[in-house]
Amino acid sequence: MLARAFTSRVAGVKVGIGDDAAVLDGSRERSHIVWTIDEQVDGAHFRRDFVSWRSIGWRSFMAAASDVAAMGAEPWCALCALVLPDDVGDAELEEIARGQSEAAARAGAAVVGGNLARGRSLSIATTLLGTCDRAVLRSGARAGDTLWMAGRVGLAAAGLRALDLGRGDDPRLLEAVAAWRTPEALVAEGLAMSPVAHAAIDVSDGLARDAGHLGEAGGVRVVFEEDALRADDSLIQAAAALGEDPLVLALHGGEDYALVVASPQPIHGFRPIGQLVEGRGLSLRGAHGERAIEPRGFDHFER
Amino acid sequence: MLARAFTSRVAGVKVGIGDDAAVLDGSRERSHIVWTIDEQVDGAHFRRDFVSWRSIGWRSFMAAASDVAAMGAEPWCALCALVLPDDVGDAELEEIARGQSEAAARAGAAVVGGNLARGRSLSIATTLLGTCDRAVLRSGARAGDTLWMAGRVGLAAAGLRALDLGRGDDPRLLEAVAAWRTPEALVAEGLAMSPVAHAAIDVSDGLARDAGHLGEAGGVRVVFEEDALRADDSLIQAAAALGEDPLVLALHGGEDYALVVASPQPIHGFRPIGQLVEGRGLSLRGAHGERAIEPRGFDHFER
Repeated sequence: MLARAFTSRVAGVKVGIGDDAAVLDGSRERSHIVWTIDEQVDGAHFRRDFVSWRSIGWRSFMAAASDVAAMGAEPWCALCALVLPDDVGDAELEEIARGQSEAAARAGAAVVGGNLARGRSLSIATTLLGTCDRAVLRSGARAGDTLWMAGRVGLAAAGLRALDLGRGDDPRLLEAVAAWRTPEALVAEGLAMSPVAHAAIDVSDGLARDAGHLGEAGGVRVVFEEDALRADDSLIQAAAALGEDPLVLALHGGEDYALVVASPQPIHGFRPIGQLVEGRGLSLRGAHGERAIEPRGFDHFER
Repeated sequence: MLARAFTSRVAGVKVGIGDDAAVLDGSRERSHIVWTIDEQVDGAHFRRDFVSWRSIGWRSFMAAASDVAAMGAEPWCALCALVLPDDVGDAELEEIARGQSEAAARAGAAVVGGNLARGRSLSIATTLLGTCDRAVLRSGARAGDTLWMAGRVGLAAAGLRALDLGRGDDPRLLEAVAAWRTPEALVAEGLAMSPVAHAAIDVSDGLARDAGHLGEAGGVRVVFEEDALRADDSLIQAAAALGEDPLVLALHGGEDYALVVASPQPIHGFRPIGQLVEGRGLSLRGAHGERAIEPRGFDHFER
């Protein structure tokens, strides 16, 4: 059944699903391979009542694809390992696989194999290979670089909060709910930044925490511009509906999979959100000056 | 902490743990890359009271390494994704990672990154890359080939049964228990068979089932020689202690990770256990003639 949902028809894949292992062409035209694994767990990264089976598959794939995008690489092929509790049957599995395949196709990749196991709770591990000529690391940011962002932040966290409150059908929150349910890895933006960026990271755990990793790895201080983080009308509307501060959602909400890069020059598809300066830590610069902020992240579900 | 247990110091790995993805040299001297993912789940593939944390790590790695060995490839590097319940703390995680690293070193590979998540039950997904010039597939067996085996079968199943019965300390069962707790992927044997084998598979679910896959993929009938499957003294002793038939354990017990190949010629480290002939299905040839057998496998834990 999975052989039907998945495909081996992607360049450089000689044998896909059905053997002990996939067989890939080792002589790719690109000089580097990047490789990630991500795992999404029921109750931690999603709740089955918040999202369709298909979206569970989609978002689990996109979480891995975002890691590859953040390296400036092009997604190539993936293996998925699923742990399925007894109440997840063939129909549900087929929907999950469909979501994975659709996400893979959107990212320019294919799922070429995997593993199924039975267990007490649902989890999906996705391992993805990508190729590039230059891998952009977390380290490499320099004082004087501008901090650029593609995509958005805070909206997925607003969507999750809306679902948690049973308000997923509120028209003012629909866009936020969609952001959480069907995020998209920024593959094209990753490829655009790869020739010039000094450093890059994707925002899975929250902008403050992830940009904090970038600053730390580069030995520089991250200064966010408050105005730039308050410029998203959809986020402002969702935050208002929830009675929350859009700035807090933008700084600490995760799972939108924005890309944040350090670069001395503008990059197509990216907008400036701050600077990298001498020092350590994080701060926010607004109309009333600059204040330090904590690199705390996003607790998927508050426990 | 995991960065301490794991290493990036393996040829062709440019960036290991700590970035969004690992970065590998894409211009390897071998023409093919093989790639597998395997997942071991508490309660399905192991029980925490049957095995040390270190052995949980070891055997989860070896299950993946065995897939690479069965392709005739050399293990290269691995990523591991762990789901940890709240009662698995840093000390336990460190022991699991130590077992993984030791197994990786034994297999000639290294764990270069991974993912940690919290969840309700423990699972370990291992994805492993290997390299080769010729990947040996499951398909390719021909009528007239001899069926060869390296390693042993049935002993791990006897060990699991011993643990299930609370008899893990019985001296007659110690070797079987060790076979289940610390199996070893047959990497050298996989490399030895790769230039000549027509087809290969590793025995994870039981000899009858896995050799059945090999026969089915090649469109041939598998005929086992009963004498060859009864030739393991350790298995005979363990089976006697358990009051079980060693032949049933050999045919249907899994998780020893033997390698089974179809080849017209002898291979160093392999012994003949049967033939491949025209037809379909499986049979067993003994002193009293030939009888059909079912390709049923090993139920990890009878439920």
